[in-house]
Formats: sequence, C-alpha cells, structure tokens
Amino acid sequence: MSESLTTGRGEAHFPARKIDVAVLGATGSVGQQFVALLANHPWFCLASVMASERSAGALYGELPWRMPAPLPNEIGRLRVEPAKPGVGPQLVFSAPDSTVAGEVEAEFAVAGHVVVSNARNHRLDPLTPLLIPEVNADHLRLLPLQREKKNRKGAIVTNPNCATIGLAMALGALREFYPKRVVVTTLQALSGAGYPGVASLDATANVIPFIDGEEAKMESETKKILGKYSGNGIEPDTVTISATATRVPVLHGHTESVSVELDEKAEATDILAAFRNFSGRPRELLLPSAPARPIVYLDQQDRPQPRIDSDWDRGMAVTVGRLRRCSVLGHKFVLLSHNLIRGAAGAAILNAELMLAEGFLN
Amino acid sequence: MSESLTTGRGEAHFPARKIDVAVLGATGSVGQQFVALLANHPWFCLASVMASERSAGALYGELPWRMPAPLPNEIGRLRVEPAKPGVGPQLVFSAPDSTVAGEVEAEFAVAGHVVVSNARNHRLDPLTPLLIPEVNADHLRLLPLQREKKNRKGAIVTNPNCATIGLAMALGALREFYPKRVVVTTLQALSGAGYPGVASLDATANVIPFIDGEEAKMESETKKILGKYSGNGIEPDTVTISATATRVPVLHGHTESVSVELDEKAEATDILAAFRNFSGRPRELLLPSAPARPIVYLDQQDRPQPRIDSDWDRGMAVTVGRLRRCSVLGHKFVLLSHNLIRGAAGAAILNAELMLAEGFLN
Amino acid sequence: MSESLTTGRGEAHFPARKIDVAVLGATGSVGQQFVALLANHPWFCLASVMASERSAGALYGELPWRMPAPLPNEIGRLRVEPAKPGVGPQLVFSAPDSTVAGEVEAEFAVAGHVVVSNARNHRLDPLTPLLIPEVNADHLRLLPLQREKKNRKGAIVTNPNCATIGLAMALGALREFYPKRVVVTTLQALSGAGYPGVASLDATANVIPFIDGEEAKMESETKKILGKYSGNGIEPDTVTISATATRVPVLHGHTESVSVELDEKAEATDILAAFRNFSGRPRELLLPSAPARPIVYLDQQDRPQPRIDSDWDRGMAVTVGRLRRCSVLGHKFVLLSHNLIRGAAGAAILNAELMLAEGFLN
Amino acid sequence: MSESLTTGRGEAHFPARKIDVAVLGATGSVGQQFVALLANHPWFCLASVMASERSAGALYGELPWRMPAPLPNEIGRLRVEPAKPGVGPQLVFSAPDSTVAGEVEAEFAVAGHVVVSNARNHRLDPLTPLLIPEVNADHLRLLPLQREKKNRKGAIVTNPNCATIGLAMALGALREFYPKRVVVTTLQALSGAGYPGVASLDATANVIPFIDGEEAKMESETKKILGKYSGNGIEPDTVTISATATRVPVLHGHTESVSVELDEKAEATDILAAFRNFSGRPRELLLPSAPARPIVYLDQQDRPQPRIDSDWDRGMAVTVGRLRRCSVLGHKFVLLSHNLIRGAAGAAILNAELMLAEGFLN
Repeated sequence: MSESLTTGRGEAHFPARKIDVAVLGATGSVGQQFVALLANHPWFCLASVMASERSAGALYGELPWRMPAPLPNEIGRLRVEPAKPGVGPQLVFSAPDSTVAGEVEAEFAVAGHVVVSNARNHRLDPLTPLLIPEVNADHLRLLPLQREKKNRKGAIVTNPNCATIGLAMALGALREFYPKRVVVTTLQALSGAGYPGVASLDATANVIPFIDGEEAKMESETKKILGKYSGNGIEPDTVTISATATRVPVLHGHTESVSVELDEKAEATDILAAFRNFSGRPRELLLPSAPARPIVYLDQQDRPQPRIDSDWDRGMAVTVGRLRRCSVLGHKFVLLSHNLIRGAAGAAILNAELMLAEGFLN
Repeated sequence: MSESLTTGRGEAHFPARKIDVAVLGATGSVGQQFVALLANHPWFCLASVMASERSAGALYGELPWRMPAPLPNEIGRLRVEPAKPGVGPQLVFSAPDSTVAGEVEAEFAVAGHVVVSNARNHRLDPLTPLLIPEVNADHLRLLPLQREKKNRKGAIVTNPNCATIGLAMALGALREFYPKRVVVTTLQALSGAGYPGVASLDATANVIPFIDGEEAKMESETKKILGKYSGNGIEPDTVTISATATRVPVLHGHTESVSVELDEKAEATDILAAFRNFSGRPRELLLPSAPARPIVYLDQQDRPQPRIDSDWDRGMAVTVGRLRRCSVLGHKFVLLSHNLIRGAAGAAILNAELMLAEGFLN
Repeated sequence: MSESLTTGRGEAHFPARKIDVAVLGATGSVGQQFVALLANHPWFCLASVMASERSAGALYGELPWRMPAPLPNEIGRLRVEPAKPGVGPQLVFSAPDSTVAGEVEAEFAVAGHVVVSNARNHRLDPLTPLLIPEVNADHLRLLPLQREKKNRKGAIVTNPNCATIGLAMALGALREFYPKRVVVTTLQALSGAGYPGVASLDATANVIPFIDGEEAKMESETKKILGKYSGNGIEPDTVTISATATRVPVLHGHTESVSVELDEKAEATDILAAFRNFSGRPRELLLPSAPARPIVYLDQQDRPQPRIDSDWDRGMAVTVGRLRRCSVLGHKFVLLSHNLIRGAAGAAILNAELMLAEGFLN
Repeated sequence: MSESLTTGRGEAHFPARKIDVAVLGATGSVGQQFVALLANHPWFCLASVMASERSAGALYGELPWRMPAPLPNEIGRLRVEPAKPGVGPQLVFSAPDSTVAGEVEAEFAVAGHVVVSNARNHRLDPLTPLLIPEVNADHLRLLPLQREKKNRKGAIVTNPNCATIGLAMALGALREFYPKRVVVTTLQALSGAGYPGVASLDATANVIPFIDGEEAKMESETKKILGKYSGNGIEPDTVTISATATRVPVLHGHTESVSVELDEKAEATDILAAFRNFSGRPRELLLPSAPARPIVYLDQQDRPQPRIDSDWDRGMAVTVGRLRRCSVLGHKFVLLSHNLIRGAAGAAILNAELMLAEGFLN
C-alpha cells in the first residue's frame, strides 16, 4: 500500500465484483446525491439505506425524492433502516445531520465499518484523513494510526466542506509556488444549506452575507488538507486564509473569488500551466469518479458561471477562470465547484474509490 | 466659497426659490431614477427632459416608466427634447449612454451649463471633480481651474461608478487609519447594468463573474476620490485596491466583501466608531438629500442584505456589517449601497446640492 | 347600526381617542404585517403582542423582524405575552397558526373579545361573517345571531383567504351582471406560504402547481362572500367557481387569470365601468385603510405585474388588466392583489375599521 | 407512402447512411438547440449552418454558445454561411427570426429544399402541414398538394408554437372524447422568448401576464392540428379554446393549467388511461427522437414542475398531473412541456424523422 502511494504506480486493487455499500443519512440532500451517484456505480452496489427513526421502516421510494434523474426502481424498493453499527455493509457513506454524525460515525468505526463521511464532525481530528485524492492521497497513511490509537477495527475518512474543496484543489494545483496568503469571498449556492435549508423569502433576489461557521472551516480545513503527513500526524500547512462566505440565489455550484500570494517567481503562464496540468492519483489509478482534468480552466472572460459550468465532468471538475494580476496579493482568479457532487457526495465516493484502489478496504 | 469649504461653517447658499434643472438621458434607468428623485425636490424643479433623437418629441409620460412609484402628472406632460447645448436650464443632470456622454457633456459645459454627470467619461479627467460630498467636498476647488484651462463658462462635476461609491465612502470614513491595501469582491445588482441590461436567461439562478471595465474603475476612481487637492490638481491617494466584480440575481443594491489593511493602531472598536461617527459637509449644510448617517452599521451577523437594506435613508446611506479580523490584511467587513440612488442619481443630486450650498452655481 | 348599513349614510362612529388592540400570533408573517400596519394607525393603538409559549416572555424587538420598514421602537419594547383570553384589549387581530387558531379564537370570543381573524378556521362557519367591506358589509348583521347562538359576549369576524379576496372583489364589482361560472388560475407569491414557508430549493426558477386546500377555499369562500344575508344566516351565491392554484417565484402579490360568464347583456365597456366605479362602504365611511379605488384598472397590455403593481394604494387596491373576450365563458381578465396586505392583515384591519365605524365595537 | 400512413405498418424508410442537413438561423436560441440535438443524431449529419449576414463568415465555434453541453468540435469548425436557397443540403431545419422566415423559407422550398420549420409564418397556411407526429401524421398528405399548387419542388412543414404543442398533444390524446371547450392559462419559461429576450429587470421575482400574439396562436393552431385531412386541405377541429399566456421566472418548460369539456361519458379513469396509452406513429416507426411515452402522467399531487420535469425522455415527453374534476367544464389538469425541445427544435427534428420514415424525403 505505501508503495503504491509513493511510487504512483498502480498496483491498484480493482474489485473483482461489486462491493456492497450503505448510505447513512440517506434522506437528506447529500444523502440523496449519494444515492443518485451510487446508482450504476461500477464498483459499488448500494445495498442499504439508513436514516433517522422518523423515516426508518418506509420504502425508500415512498419518501420525497428531489434529484433531477428518477430514482432507480431497485433502490426505491430498499427499506429504510435505522442506523445500527455492526450490521450491513462494511463500507458506509455517511451524511447525517452534524448534530448526530459525530457519535454515530464513531460507533460505526468501532464496530468495524469504514465510514466515508461528508459530515464536519471529525474533519479536524488529528488522526482522521481530510482527503482530496488529487491533493493529499498520502494522508490515508493516518489510518493505521487512527485504528491503533482509537482502538477501532474500522475507520473514518472525511472530505472537506463544500466551500473548502474548490479552494483547496486550486491551491493544491499551485503547491509548487508555495501559496502564502489567500483572501477569498464565496458566492454559495442554496443547495449547500440542505433541504429545506434557506427560506425562499430570504433567498429570492437577495444575498445573505453570512454562513454560520463556514469561514472558519475554510481556513482550518485548507491548512490541514495542504499539510504534510509526518509519521505520526498531519502538520498543517502555513498558508494563511481569510474567507468571507455569502449565499446567493443559485441552485448548485459555489463560486469563489480568490486572491493569492505565491512564490515571487510564479508567472501567470506558470499558474495557468499548473492548473491545466494538475492531475494526481485518481487519474493514475483510473478511479471511476475521477474527472479527466480535476481543474478545467475556461478562457472566456465571464466564466465560470454556476448555472452553466457546475456540471463539467459530471460535476467532479473544478472550473477556474479570470486568472489575472492582483495588485495586493499578486494573482487572482475565480473558481467554481459543484457543491453537492465535488463538494460532498462525489468527493466521498472518490475517497472510497481511492481507498479501494490503494488497498485500504481489505 | 473657499472659506466655507475650509472652515466647514455654512455660509450656505440656500435657494430663495426653486432652481430649474434638466435631465439629459432621461429615458434610461438612471435617467428615470433622476426624474423620480427630482419630483418634489425642495430646491430643484425638473423643467426639461432630454433624450436621444429616437425619443425626442414624445411626451415623457408616453414612454415606458419602470420606477415603482407612479410618474407625477406634471412631469409626464413634459415633451422630450433633443440634447441641445445652450438651451434650457443652466443645471443639467446627465445620464446618457457613455458612448455619447463624453462629447455632449463637454459641449454643454462650453455653452455655460453646469453638468452634474453620472457618466464615466470625465471621471478621471484631472480637472474634473469626482465628488462624494461626505468625502472630498473640497475637490470642488478644481472648478475655477477647469473653467480656465478648458476655456468653458460652465463646468462638469462627476460622481463615482455605482460599485466605487460604497467602497470609497467606507474608506473615506476610515481615512484617519490610512487605508493601505484593499481586496474587494462585489456582488452587484442587475439594475447596475441599465435597461434592458442583463438578459434574464443569463441572470436567473446564476452568477456572472465579470463586469466589463468595472474593476479598473473601482481601483482608479477610489484613488482619485481619496486624493488631495493641491492647488493645481488632485494627487491620487496611495491606497492599492484589487477588485473583483460579479453580477448576482438581485434587483437593486451592490454588496461588497472588503478586506483592508489599515494603520496598525486601528482596533475594531476604533473602526466601528469611525463608521458610526462618519458625517461630513452634507449634514453640516443640511443638504436635502443628505442621509442622517452616511454609513449605517448593522449589528446583526447576517446583514446588510440587498433586498432589505438597500433603502436605508431613502437609499442614500451605505450600510456596513460583519466587521471582523482579516487574517491577511487586518480587517474585513461587508458593505451595501443602492446602486441607482447612492450609486448614481442620488449621488449626483447630492453633488448639485453641495454645489448650490457652497456657492458654485452662481 | 342597521340604518347605516342599509342607507349607506354614515352615522359613522369615529373613535374619540385611539382604541387599544392586541395582535395574536404576532411573530408570524401575517402577524408582523399586522404590527407594521398598526404602527401609526389613526384609530388603533397596538398595546399587546401575543404569541406561542415559545416566544412568550421575549421583547418583541428581540425577535427576528422581516418587514422592509424598521420596527418602531415603542413596539419593540412590548413584551410578548402568551395568548390568554379575557386579558388585555377587547379588540384582537388574530393570525395564529391554523392548527391552534380555531380553538383559541373561540375562547377569546367567549371571554368577550372581538376577534378579527385572518385564520381559516371559522371562515365557513354559518354564523361568522366572512367579510370584505366593499362587498358584503351587511354580513356584519350576523353578529347578534352569532353572540346569541354561540353564547359568547365577544365575536369572531374573518377575512378571506389571500387568493380568494382578489377574485371576490372583482366578482363583487361585477355583481350587477350576475357572475355564473368562473374558471381561475392563480400564480401565487411565496409570502402567501408564511415564513419559512416554501424552501428556496423548491421555489427557485420553478412553478409548484399545487397549494394544499387553496382551490377548495377559493370556491367555497367566494360563494359565501357573495351570498345574501337572510335574517338567520347567509345564503351562498350560486356562482360556480373552478380554481387552479399555483406557486410562482414572486415575493408578494397573487396574480390570477380569470374567465367569467356573466349576464348576456354585459359588454366590455360595462364591465370596465363597473371595475372603475366600484366603491362601497369603506369610502363612504372614510375608513383610514380604505383604498381610493378598491379596483384599479390598468390599461397597459402587460399589466398588472406583481413586482410593480402590488403596492397600489398601500397594497389595499386590487389591480385588474387585460379585460378581453373569452371564447368559452364570455369575458376574461387578469387581477392582482397584495397577499399580505389586501389578502391578510390589511383586510382584517379594514374589517375592524368598518366594525368600529358601524358601531359594532361598542 | 399513403399505405404506411393508413395501415400504421412501417414500410419505414430508414436511411442507409446519414443524410446531410442544414440549420437556418443557427445562432438564435432555437437554432442552437437544433445544433445541440443534431450532434450525434443517428440519421442526420449537420453539414451546414446558416445565419444572417451579420454572423456569416465566422466559424460557428467562435460565436457565443449558450447551451449546457459543450459544442462538438466538428460543428465549431463549420463556417457560418448566408442563407442561400439552392445550395447545400436538401433538408433544412429552419429557425430564423419571424420577420424574415416567411420569405426565405418559401424561397428555399421553391429551390427544392424540404424546409422543416419552427417559425410561425407558414403554420396557418392551408397547404402547409402543422405537424405533431403523434397527433396528425396524416397531415403530411398535404405535401403533394402544396407542391402542385405552390409550384415548388421542395416543401415546407411546420411545428406548432411552444405553448401550443403541450395542449395539442394532451387534446390529441383525448380525441376519443371529443374535446369541445378549453380554458387554458400558461406559465411560460423565459427561454421561450429567445435570447436576449426578456430583460432580467422585468423577469426577476415577477410575472408578466402578456405574451404578444401567443393566445391567438394557441387557439388557431390547436384547431388546425386537431383538424381532419379531407383530400384538398385540413378542416379545422371545432374545439373552442380560450387562452391566457403569462411569463414566469422559469428557465425552461411551459406549464399550463387546463380545463376541458369532453364528451359526457368521459370518466377520470378513462382520461387517465387515454393519457397513459397515448402513442402514435413515432413509436410505431421507431423514430429516434420519439419519446417512450409522449405523455407521462405524474401521480404526485404537486407535479409537474418545470425545473424538475421538463427533461422527461430527453425533453420530448409532455408531463401531465393533477387530473381532477372541474366544476365548470368537467375536467382539469396541469401539463408541462420543454419549450426548446418538444416545443421547438425537438419537434421539428421529430417531424423530419417522420417524413424520412414515411418516404417524404425522396
């Protein structure tokens, strides 16, 4: 395993047959996105949907379904189960409400499940990988330590907050230029607040310049993601990030206006090349959810736009545009990522694919 | 006149009776806003509406009217005239298309009119005041020089771009702390693009992260506004500004996320006090359009919001909120200003009121 | 009293001094609209705000306020009280959740309060006036019967559903033509669903072609409103109404597309005159909330539009446009009414004003 | 040919290899939708894009592209040509501006092209089929007559207006119940007005209750579509239709609220069965753009909704819901169709497929 991580050569462990998986918190917005993405997944078979007591017992197909594509019949026939550690598939995608996620995910991990979580509760835990496969695949090395120190057979792996991931991927692509200071303002989509989420009376023709906890998450999560694995933990990166998070009346796709201070030698052409050549483990390992290019740079001067650019590469690519000189920090650009796919369910599924291919699910 | 500017003591010249004024470009978005604000103005009487040849000859009341309040009957009965320098009121509010504004405004000034313009064409001209009465009322001293050097009996005075004004007022309020560097991202309303402006197919549930020319305007205009009058011109301020301008699906009110580097001694409480105590010439002179407080600081953590806060003090106040520490530049906050009122027609009217009260319209 | 109703001559009972009133359910959308409209009311003084146990005890000014105009300070200082029949002002404006309104309003009436209610619970009660002062002011004659048969000292008076009222007023204006059959489709604003109401993820760039219970309300309420007082009750009108109710992404203002079959002799010019001449008791009695014209007919071919026409006459006028031939039923037109004002709080306040002026509050 | 039409048995003429086609008016909204749908079409190969002189000469890929999926490279390399009859492919899909469409399409037809048009100009011409393949495939029999009487080698075939088609398909499905009278109110999407179309300042959070000419089109077109081919023309159906057309802030998908009077024997269950069993020539002939079911009935009480239901069967199915009793006309329901696909480009392409399969392109 460590070989494959360091050499970048894939002794990838493709599954001989599909692996059963469960979704925990399957009725929420991210939970439904998990279900939609797992339908017809080449490696995973959705065998169990779990939710709170309130929904347990119902057929999944009887509950309101808010995704654009219709719910596949075979999934509609699954009966919603209460969250019960130790039962069902080993691999659990988790998107419960954060008020309960912390405890329940820990219980699943103790009971031997591998929990691939979108919840925020364990993201900053020193022994839990906060994973973006293109950026810090080697953070999976925390897992033996996590199992030992936390005395659990299973494990927890997390993905970043939906507003963090676009920024962390862009900075990951620019790592060779040592990002030092970042000022970022987000224009986040309504679906980032879940369902029912933002009231239409607040959202319509308006901007809400505040999202509770979001700015702190973007700052601390990015430092951890870009941090170095050191044998007994992750040393956070020294980059300084100042974020302002706003909500705008957009359905899907978080837009971010980013100013960044890089190593002085970085020229615009270098940065552009770094965005365009950015790749990483997912493509090496041919993971099924890996985008062809993790970052797609758009040349048009008025792009990316959330309504037309959120779905690049099935929502797994981050789009970037408007790279130009920042008179204060050196460089600035605009980025966009699909908050429910690359920023949530798709991120977790890519994490699980990486774990499988790298041998962490044995 | 120069006395009143330096002493701040008002030998203010209130008009004994209403002064006739004209609106040039009266059929556009800003033109209609001029007309709406001039109806019932205590000092000015709208006596003439001018527009392009296309509309000339029609009754103003026959043309489409897009303001919320109904058009007053007496204004509806005005016949739209073609722009003709030397005819009609001396005081002309000007909001024509910028493709023609430059030349036509100069012709009016040569013919003896005082042109109070919202167009961008002359804003950066070294002899033309780019005026915010609360911030740089003394820039009116350029006028004698303008008349002399440009050999015109009349004059041109301009107000800033709709996205510049909120920022320039906030920085004006913080002048004692010597703003050094600013990173700002705007979330601008649709009405900032005029009518018909942005296509609904582009605007709906979307963000357009580009507004042509806007970022450069914000940077250069703000430096001039904060600059010092030096006897033979304005020396631009040394503040460095890096702007990103975006369009969001909001009707009125430009929101801006601002990070600013100030003098090291500036504490949050000082900044808050500076916002709250900010005042200036308009209040001293009791100008009719002067807001009670030019900057209204809102304590709620999710404000200002464009749909509910754009109309503070009849749209003439800039609202500010979310003042907090910026880990990169020191301080950050969110501001909002009504782009058609404080950012356009209301700004020009306040400029004219200042000129009248300071004796520049004799 | 009965004289003034039949003769239409106002021995109107204007209050010598302001009357104290309470608002029940003061924290909801309609409750806040009540508070906003009662601030500075010439006849009523808001003396008490009541809400559910959850909010009781707080200062009203500490709770979230979602109206555009700022909350007056003196109202912000009122302490929210639990709903307690027999305590506080006799006149109670009521807008609680309909799950509790039925019972609590009856208790207030028994305890001697006059409950002017916007809730749906008692609207179809045979002894309770469902009142539109311009249309059926004489239905107030039910009150003595209500008091006697229900053995209550106080009384309950209701106003129609927010989608009913525009239609009922338009049909009221056309009464002389005996409306027989009506097909109506509504395009209703988001604020009609209260707060938080419709999720922004459902509302954005979408139509929801269903509003629970709304179509039946429009059909049965309109028949009662247009019905005749017969000495011992209201005989519903024989008009047949078929309604389809939809929700559209509009903030305020319900639009309705109406086709109507009238007496054969009705010509378009007659109908237009009937709309324009429509008046009724509120103007005769000079009620403070009475619109100058209850129905404003707009000649432009693309009006009324909810964003620009909802506020005619402070939201108390119904606007109508596009009157033209319907090849199926004879005539068709489009109407619009402000759902929170004419369709809710403003309607109830006008009802109370009528009751006061007609001597029903003694 | 007449055999295949009458027997419904497909001696369908599938193309041995792809047929070259042109798009006329290729830069507008519908033109771009044509291009998007023709990319990868199994029968047609887009060989020529034609537009006005203004765009002619440019590479198609250099012009603004507003469709969600990226423009295929091979189409981007086509050079935009001026409209020139007699040159290029015989089969021409046409979506020019209606101010020029009438004349230019006639010239193409005279020059031997088969023009499959989305423009309104020839729709009501007595010799021109106004075609919905599921409803009136036999109207193609007009073509020999058209050629003869108009002395043209080619031909023109049209599809209905985007608001007509949903209604005409629903009524076509109910033909066995002899629809007599229909009252319909539409809630139409912004993209129905083309690009730039409706100004965002008019569309945002608003309803515009007027679309120029739309109501008359719905009434006259539907009668022709449902009419009978009689040997020397089409006898319009006797159904009476009264339409009200409104614009709502939705991107794609026209919603319609429909009340209909049918033969008295029609029960709700019969109508439901008629919707669900509706099929027609396109499925018999296995046309590539034929939806699996032309009408999809949705059981949920709050559907169809334009944002989530417009794309059923690649936008080619009409969705229907809320079938219930209408107290005035007997039955009512809500329908939805994608205005750019089933209501425009997709309709024309299905028409061309039908013509090819039925042997009308030889």
